Amino acid sequence: MKLVLLRHGESEWNRKNLFTGWTDIPLSEQGKLEAKQAGKLLKENDLDFDICYTSYLKRAIDTLHIVLKEMDRQWLPEIKSWRLNEQHYGRLQGLNKSETAKRYGEEQVKNWRRSFDIRPPMLTRGSEQDPATQEMYQRITNCTLPLGESLKDVSERVFKLFSLEIAEKIVNGSRVLIVSHGNCLRALLMKFEGLSPEEIASVNVPTGIPLVCEVDDRLNLINKTYLGDPSVIEKRIGQVEAQGKISFHLE
Amino acid sequence: MKLVLLRHGESEWNRKNLFTGWTDIPLSEQGKLEAKQAGKLLKENDLDFDICYTSYLKRAIDTLHIVLKEMDRQWLPEIKSWRLNEQHYGRLQGLNKSETAKRYGEEQVKNWRRSFDIRPPMLTRGSEQDPATQEMYQRITNCTLPLGESLKDVSERVFKLFSLEIAEKIVNGSRVLIVSHGNCLRALLMKFEGLSPEEIASVNVPTGIPLVCEVDDRLNLINKTYLGDPSVIEKRIGQVEAQGKISFHLE
Repeated sequence: MKLVLLRHGESEWNRKNLFTGWTDIPLSEQGKLEAKQAGKLLKENDLDFDICYTSYLKRAIDTLHIVLKEMDRQWLPEIKSWRLNEQHYGRLQGLNKSETAKRYGEEQVKNWRRSFDIRPPMLTRGSEQDPATQEMYQRITNCTLPLGESLKDVSERVFKLFSLEIAEKIVNGSRVLIVSHGNCLRALLMKFEGLSPEEIASVNVPTGIPLVCEVDDRLNLINKTYLGDPSVIEKRIGQVEAQGKISFHLE
Repeated sequence: MKLVLLRHGESEWNRKNLFTGWTDIPLSEQGKLEAKQAGKLLKENDLDFDICYTSYLKRAIDTLHIVLKEMDRQWLPEIKSWRLNEQHYGRLQGLNKSETAKRYGEEQVKNWRRSFDIRPPMLTRGSEQDPATQEMYQRITNCTLPLGESLKDVSERVFKLFSLEIAEKIVNGSRVLIVSHGNCLRALLMKFEGLSPEEIASVNVPTGIPLVCEVDDRLNLINKTYLGDPSVIEKRIGQVEAQGKISFHLE
């Protein structure tokens, strides 16, 4: 059984190296291109799907739509869930990652970005960026909406969706595509691979590169492969890793 | 309670005046523009939705996606159903409407396009255009897939979806957007307004103009209004009507 994970293409704020989290930022032109290439790779590798999952955020939704257009599979059912949103970065959202590293140190930024259970500085309930004040989350029970999240928090909410809904579909033979975000996919990989908090800290998921996961019928990961040119994959992983450095500059 | 119906924007084959039916033809540039305008109109008129329905065909799906982008509502749930597809035009699919009128007479073409229970020349099972042979309909029970349809056939399948699923949502207060096709929307209007086969023959639904339907709690139509500039609406309705004439030329 195969499950394909895909991180959205580069967004406008990836480009500017800002903490994005739940801020609903569109794809950059480069990001649209990455999504198109991802669709092409999936098609060339004869991957097909029965159902697609994505988040509430337009950079993921648009990536999915571009991928499906490229695969000529626009009719496929798609389910959008806030549980597949990026990690909520609380009061860090909108701040530049390099500048934050200058101010708080690279180690602190690395902890916020890559530690398992350290939360960012939290929003206050009712503030402008609180999801509970935003129209798109009005259908969600307030008490489940975060004001800032650690990877552990992300892992818990993603796994609620996964275990309640997606796992059953995979076991019953549905071919599932999940288009989501860096930390959300790290949370899934951590679970699939049984990684420790230390091990997951060094895992970076590149934008727009389909990751094909082969799983057994108990959903243990047997094999995982990024599709495409290994040098492109390496470069994109390196870019994600470098974002929290003081010296980060996008090529 | 309000329900909004929207016919997809102009497709490449609307432009060429070909019978399209279930042929999966993309929007023209003009069609994308119409979809954008439709989204703008919905937003300007403070219309909002809880759930969106569309067909399996990309001209409708893309229209919905453009509309949601324009409304900044990309996260809304969307359900794609083959039951919202255009009328299947059988062996007429791919033929030019004016040329067909020249060959069979305007009256015959009008009957095929606007009568209630006359079917087009039917496809044979297993032929290239038979939906049962196409990947996108592999999940649908073969015996329900048409080889050609009258408006009556369309009406029956659309109403299966409407009565089994959509009606309940509307009655429970969900604001529903349906992005579909000319004859599918004519079938819905016929039912809502209690029109006779003779009356529905003269109803033409323009591309890309949102139709706001106010309904009571038994889903009787109380009021219907096309949004936007009346002269644009008239012009688009006129275009649809003229397509089956021998002398049809797109401006």
